[in-house]
Amino acid sequence: MNAPLIGVIGPGDGATASQCALAAEVGTLLARSGAIVVCGGLGGVMEAACRGARSAGGTTIGFLPGTEAADANPYVTIALPTGLGELRNGLIVRAGRAFVAVGGSWGTLSEIALAKRAGKPVYALDGWEIPGLEPAPSPEEAVRRALA
Amino acid sequence: MNAPLIGVIGPGDGATASQCALAAEVGTLLARSGAIVVCGGLGGVMEAACRGARSAGGTTIGFLPGTEAADANPYVTIALPTGLGELRNGLIVRAGRAFVAVGGSWGTLSEIALAKRAGKPVYALDGWEIPGLEPAPSPEEAVRRALA
Amino acid sequence: MNAPLIGVIGPGDGATASQCALAAEVGTLLARSGAIVVCGGLGGVMEAACRGARSAGGTTIGFLPGTEAADANPYVTIALPTGLGELRNGLIVRAGRAFVAVGGSWGTLSEIALAKRAGKPVYALDGWEIPGLEPAPSPEEAVRRALA
Amino acid sequence: MNAPLIGVIGPGDGATASQCALAAEVGTLLARSGAIVVCGGLGGVMEAACRGARSAGGTTIGFLPGTEAADANPYVTIALPTGLGELRNGLIVRAGRAFVAVGGSWGTLSEIALAKRAGKPVYALDGWEIPGLEPAPSPEEAVRRALA
Repeated sequence: MNAPLIGVIGPGDGATASQCALAAEVGTLLARSGAIVVCGGLGGVMEAACRGARSAGGTTIGFLPGTEAADANPYVTIALPTGLGELRNGLIVRAGRAFVAVGGSWGTLSEIALAKRAGKPVYALDGWEIPGLEPAPSPEEAVRRALA
Repeated sequence: MNAPLIGVIGPGDGATASQCALAAEVGTLLARSGAIVVCGGLGGVMEAACRGARSAGGTTIGFLPGTEAADANPYVTIALPTGLGELRNGLIVRAGRAFVAVGGSWGTLSEIALAKRAGKPVYALDGWEIPGLEPAPSPEEAVRRALA
Repeated sequence: MNAPLIGVIGPGDGATASQCALAAEVGTLLARSGAIVVCGGLGGVMEAACRGARSAGGTTIGFLPGTEAADANPYVTIALPTGLGELRNGLIVRAGRAFVAVGGSWGTLSEIALAKRAGKPVYALDGWEIPGLEPAPSPEEAVRRALA
Repeated sequence: MNAPLIGVIGPGDGATASQCALAAEVGTLLARSGAIVVCGGLGGVMEAACRGARSAGGTTIGFLPGTEAADANPYVTIALPTGLGELRNGLIVRAGRAFVAVGGSWGTLSEIALAKRAGKPVYALDGWEIPGLEPAPSPEEAVRRALA
């Protein structure tokens, strides 16, 4: 059976240090559980999640907005340039079976909304508080639920 | 000069009667101002906006999730099947220069978020209350601002 | 009943003068028949088709590769920025019910192939000669068949 | 350094036995060279290429037209549902750095054309003969050039 793909979504430039720490922990826990991290492939939360996953020997997939694989953060193992700009968010949502959202940004919110629209579970850490979006108390709990 | 394209976004199936009335008013006001209504082409808020625009002699564009033009509501003048499913939301956002959101749904929220991410103005009527999303007191005011 | 959308596809930069003349004639004939011209919105064959359509009072839709409506040629009445780059070719194919291809380029070939894949008719003038692609003897005949 | 992503493109349903044998050989050679096979994730040439790659311990990525990972052939290690239908062809082209085309179909031709449009190399085995498309005499030679 193939490894499950779990999306880790969150801001790039605007990510705080504590959000990056949370994302790294999520990435590590996902990798230890045998899951593959899917993300937007850039910096901030995305890079932290990939770094965490790689530190545990995991695989990471980055759907990049541009057309250059070289734009991926150094912890992406499979860089997928899409050339779709921010519309690549929808591909992350299509690829993942569940999502952990860390922090908030408009791009992140678009992913949360598309995932909920598709009926896929999203667990939020330190970010958007929206009716219908389930907050998770910790990275461990977010990962546990995402893999359930 | 070409007519401005203004997006009217909102739920299909779950739209309430009062939301549809607001959307129809928005559509009428946009058409009277010479704007073209861009929407998702289906029912609910989308259909009401198109109906309103058509009643004032306007043009309406519907980006459809499926591949059949026949899925468009009867008030769409230019039906654009995309076959992208919910990812066609991103095309609506790319096409419009400003947006009026009526009511709330996950799909609508994805459009709001993508529009804000792209730095495009969104004016909300009777829907999501999110930090950074500007509510409009009336259809008149929403349309006035969208066309400003 | 809404106007049929017919795609006119062909090269931008590399278009020859005679290909542009053919495309303009196709655009004019489509507009006279009440059809809307759908194209990639840029120069060369696309611009010529739009110019021809506008000269006959027609409507023209341009699916642009970039995110700026201002990139459209001056004869596009409805400019749709997609931000998808060359992948917007697929949207042209999804939008049109039939296609007239004028001249040849790799981008044009991708549209021809996607249209044939979707089971939509393509009529070719002065371009790719490929098994299964129907050449048309003249703009009149290409338009007649596309609208049949 | 990350493994290079090489696309193997070709028909699903209409693939011949000899084309599948060629595709399997290409997949095996790519995996032995440390490359990752990217494809459309379905049957025929796509499945054969994945089967070949897996037999050599390789990794295979399938960009699926639908929204269900379960539609992937059993030799896909990373199934990416896109929900874009045939427009997912463009994502394969964006993801790969070079392509081996085996056999012919309209879908395959759309990928060849998009790859050439993007300036990416395509090597063809037993398929479309088009001016500007480089035929390869053997799977070995196609893989050697794709990885050059």
